[in-house]
Amino acid sequence: MDYGEAALEKHKELGGKLSVELKDPLNTKEKLSIYYTPGVAAVSSHIAKHPDEARDFTGLNNSVAVVSDGSAVLGLGNIGPQAALPVMEGKAMLFKHFAGIDSVPIVLDVHTSDEIVAVVKAIAPSFGGINLEDIAAPICFEVEERLKADLSIPVMHDDQHGTAIVVLAGLINAMKVTGRDLAKSRVVIVGAGAAGTAIIKLLHLYAKPEILAVDSKGIVSKDRTDLNEEKRKLLHFTNPGAVSGSLETALKGTDVFIGVSKAGLLTPGMVKAMAKDPIIFAMANPMPEIMPDAARKAGAAIIATGRSDFPNQVNNALAFPGIFRGALDNRVTKITDQHKIAVAKAIAGLVEYPDAQHIVPSVLDERLVPTIASVIV
Amino acid sequence: MDYGEAALEKHKELGGKLSVELKDPLNTKEKLSIYYTPGVAAVSSHIAKHPDEARDFTGLNNSVAVVSDGSAVLGLGNIGPQAALPVMEGKAMLFKHFAGIDSVPIVLDVHTSDEIVAVVKAIAPSFGGINLEDIAAPICFEVEERLKADLSIPVMHDDQHGTAIVVLAGLINAMKVTGRDLAKSRVVIVGAGAAGTAIIKLLHLYAKPEILAVDSKGIVSKDRTDLNEEKRKLLHFTNPGAVSGSLETALKGTDVFIGVSKAGLLTPGMVKAMAKDPIIFAMANPMPEIMPDAARKAGAAIIATGRSDFPNQVNNALAFPGIFRGALDNRVTKITDQHKIAVAKAIAGLVEYPDAQHIVPSVLDERLVPTIASVIV
Repeated sequence: MDYGEAALEKHKELGGKLSVELKDPLNTKEKLSIYYTPGVAAVSSHIAKHPDEARDFTGLNNSVAVVSDGSAVLGLGNIGPQAALPVMEGKAMLFKHFAGIDSVPIVLDVHTSDEIVAVVKAIAPSFGGINLEDIAAPICFEVEERLKADLSIPVMHDDQHGTAIVVLAGLINAMKVTGRDLAKSRVVIVGAGAAGTAIIKLLHLYAKPEILAVDSKGIVSKDRTDLNEEKRKLLHFTNPGAVSGSLETALKGTDVFIGVSKAGLLTPGMVKAMAKDPIIFAMANPMPEIMPDAARKAGAAIIATGRSDFPNQVNNALAFPGIFRGALDNRVTKITDQHKIAVAKAIAGLVEYPDAQHIVPSVLDERLVPTIASVIV
Repeated sequence: MDYGEAALEKHKELGGKLSVELKDPLNTKEKLSIYYTPGVAAVSSHIAKHPDEARDFTGLNNSVAVVSDGSAVLGLGNIGPQAALPVMEGKAMLFKHFAGIDSVPIVLDVHTSDEIVAVVKAIAPSFGGINLEDIAAPICFEVEERLKADLSIPVMHDDQHGTAIVVLAGLINAMKVTGRDLAKSRVVIVGAGAAGTAIIKLLHLYAKPEILAVDSKGIVSKDRTDLNEEKRKLLHFTNPGAVSGSLETALKGTDVFIGVSKAGLLTPGMVKAMAKDPIIFAMANPMPEIMPDAARKAGAAIIATGRSDFPNQVNNALAFPGIFRGALDNRVTKITDQHKIAVAKAIAGLVEYPDAQHIVPSVLDERLVPTIASVIV
C-alpha cells in the first residue's frame, strides 16, 4: 500500500485529524450560566485565591502540548512550522488514543533557543505538560534543559528520550535473545543529533557498553576539529580507544548497530563485517538505514525499525503516552534518568518470551500505558 | 439558583470542559501508518512544497485560539493566566457549540504588549484565527493593532469589537422601539477601557451621536490632566461641548446609558434624571450597573444586560461565533469596521418585531451564525 497517497487523500478529506469537543453539551441557558458567565466567575475567583487548585477545575490535569518549530521533522529536515503540523496532529492522536490525554499541537514560528524557551514558558500555564518534538540539535538540548529547570510541569523532548527509552527496552531483550551482555557489547550509534545523543547517554548510564558515535563525517573522535560542543561532550561516553575513521571502520566486529540517521546508509556488506549474529536497529523514518529483508540476508540476528509494517517496531509511541499519563496522574513534574531506565525495563518486561521477531511489545498493546504510568512516581 | 456554587461543583466534577477527540479512530495499524509515520511524511512534504495548501490538509481551516493574559477577566480584574483559564475554556465551548469551531484556550504568563505580540506571532501558525480575550486596556489596543498588521489570519479582541457590535445591534432596535434617531441622541458611555473605547468608535462611525465618555474620575474632557493617550484620543469622538464633571452631570437629560463598568454604579435617581423613556444597557459582568427591576421602576423604557437570565441579553456571544465562522469559511483575514457594522445590522435584522423585551435575538437563535457569517466577505 502507498501510505503517502492514502495519507494525502485522508488528510484532505478530514481537514485536520483532531476536533475539540464539549464534555457536557451547552444545550440550556442554565448550562451557559454555569460554564460561562455568570457562574464561571466563581471558579476563576476560587483559582485566583487558591492557585494550587487550578488543576482541579480545568483541563490542566489531562492536557499536553505537542510543541515543535518544524526544524527537524521526521527524515524531512527543516520544513517549518506549518508543514510540521500534520505530524504534530498525528502525535496528538496517539496521545489521545493510547493514553486518553487531550493534546494540542503548537507549532512555532521562532527557531532560536531563547525564543523557543520564552514562548513555551509564556504558554505553559495553558497545559499540564509539554512534549517537545522535532526540534533540531543542538538547540533542542538547551531548550529542554532550560524549560525543565524553569517550569513546574513535566517537559520531555521525545525525539531524545522517547527514542532512547525504546532503544534500551529493545536492546534489553535483544541481548537476551542473542545471549549477550550489554555491558560487554560494542555498540555503534549512527546519527549524533537529538536521538543519538540521548541513546548514548542512556546506554552509558544503564550498562556502560563500549560505544562509538558516528555522524556524517565519520567516527566522533577527539582528533576531529569540526565537533560542536554537544558532540564534543559525547567523548565522555564514547570512543575510549580514540578510534578515528569511517562508518565501515566503526562497524567491524561490532555487536549492535543503532541507526537514527538516514535511509539506505547501512549496506549488506557492512552488516557482514559486524560480529556474528549482529543486532540492527535501523530507525530512520520513514525509510530505514537498511530494509529488514536485506539485513537478514546479510546475517542480522535481530532487525528492528521504527515502522509499523515490520516486526520489532522500536518506536517512541511505545513510551511517551504512558510517561505523560503517569506524570499527570502522579503529579510528577520532572522526568528523571531513573524514570527513563524504569520505563525501558517495564517495556522490555512486557515481552514474556522474547525472540528475534518480538523484542518489544506491539504499540497497540493495551498493557503499555498503565504499566509505564505506574513507574513514573 | 446560585450559579457560582453550581459552577464550582460542575467544573470540579468534569476537570476541564473540553476534550480533544480524533476525527477517525486509530484502531488499525494501517491508520497509524496513514495518520502518523510513514504516511504523514507525504503530507508534510506536500505542505513544505505548497505552503498555501496547509489549510487543506490540517485543522487550520477550523481552529481559533482564545488567547488571554488574564489581566482583565470579567469584572474580576487582573487575576492571572491560570485563574482566567475556566473563562477561556467556556469561550471555547461557545465557539464549538454555536459555530462548530475547534477552539483552544491559550493563557499567557507574559503581560507587556511586546511580549504578548511576540508570543502570539510565534504560535500563530498553529491556528486559523486568534480571538484575543480579557487583556487589559490600554495594552489590548496596541496588541490587537500590531497582530492585525503582522498576521495573515483573522485577529479580533472580542472585549472591544464583539461588545461594540452587539451594543450597536441592540441600539439599532432600541431606537426603533423608543422612536429615536441615533444620530440625534445623546449617549453616555461609562467605562473607558477596551469595551467602552470600541463602542464609542463604532457608534461614532455609524451615526455620529453626541457621546460623553465617563471613567472612574468623571467625564472624559480636555481639561483633565490624568488621561492616558488612548483616553485622550476619545476626545475626537466625544464631548463636543467640552463638558466637565461627574456621572450625574453627564446623565442629565441623556437618552442612552451604556455601562461597561461595575456593579451597582447606576442609581434609580440617576435614571430618573435622564431623558424621558431612557435606554439602559447595564453590561457589567456578572453583576450589572443596575438591576433590571430597579431600572424599570425608575422609568427606563428599555433595559439590557449581558446576562442570560434577563431579557435583552446584549452579550458578545451573539457576534463572535458567526464572525470567526465567516472569516474561516470565506478566508477573510481582516475584520474591518465595515464588517462590524454589517454584523450589527444583521443581528438587529433578525428581530422582526422589536419591542422593549426583544431588542436582540436570543444567543441560542440558530440563525445567528449563518446570517453573520454571510456578511463577513
